[in-house]
Amino acid sequence: MEIVNIAEKLSSFTDHWSPKIIGELNGQQVRLSKFKGEFVWHHHENEDEMFLVIKGELTLGFRDGDKVLNEGEFIIVPKGVEHKPSAQEEVSVLMFEPATALNTGNLDNDLTIMNLDRI
Amino acid sequence: MEIVNIAEKLSSFTDHWSPKIIGELNGQQVRLSKFKGEFVWHHHENEDEMFLVIKGELTLGFRDGDKVLNEGEFIIVPKGVEHKPSAQEEVSVLMFEPATALNTGNLDNDLTIMNLDRI
Repeated sequence: MEIVNIAEKLSSFTDHWSPKIIGELNGQQVRLSKFKGEFVWHHHENEDEMFLVIKGELTLGFRDGDKVLNEGEFIIVPKGVEHKPSAQEEVSVLMFEPATALNTGNLDNDLTIMNLDRI
Repeated sequence: MEIVNIAEKLSSFTDHWSPKIIGELNGQQVRLSKFKGEFVWHHHENEDEMFLVIKGELTLGFRDGDKVLNEGEFIIVPKGVEHKPSAQEEVSVLMFEPATALNTGNLDNDLTIMNLDRI
């Protein structure tokens, strides 16, 4: 058992849209990522996904409008719901989702990362 | 879909050792609790449990020694591993665990809460 310091983990990488695995439990993963700019519209067929903002401001686009999350706020996106993360300035986000969840959900494209790094 | 502000949720209750459900996804729950004093030794037969410190300092006793977690740090306690949460001063903790996890794990005693509040 290891104590994980989220700030330390954040300081260990600089790339965007590339979630890192920082914990695993009960078939779920705790992932940490930095977002900047715009991601693609996608949904997860079988997985609900939680986004918790650690630092910065996260915009989640939904088909019926945007939601803006600040530090210390989270949202749970149910499976099947299309969403599009974006951030004008860099935002650090902790995600909680099943280990099976692809970062691009139903899409397989240049942004898809099949094997996430563990840090 | 609701944006959950963790600080707001924390300000809505004052009791200790009584986890509140603040989110649910994939059969898991996000729980928020305040601890102060000493809890009981217990383990969870089938559930891994994650403790993330939001504010304060959390001590987790294990049979081979204590671990102390500060704000922004988490630990995942694998199923079957005995642990004993305690806090000299009040600590606010976010927990991720399966919806099936009892707060007292393998024990059923005065501290056991069968139906957690949703806040």
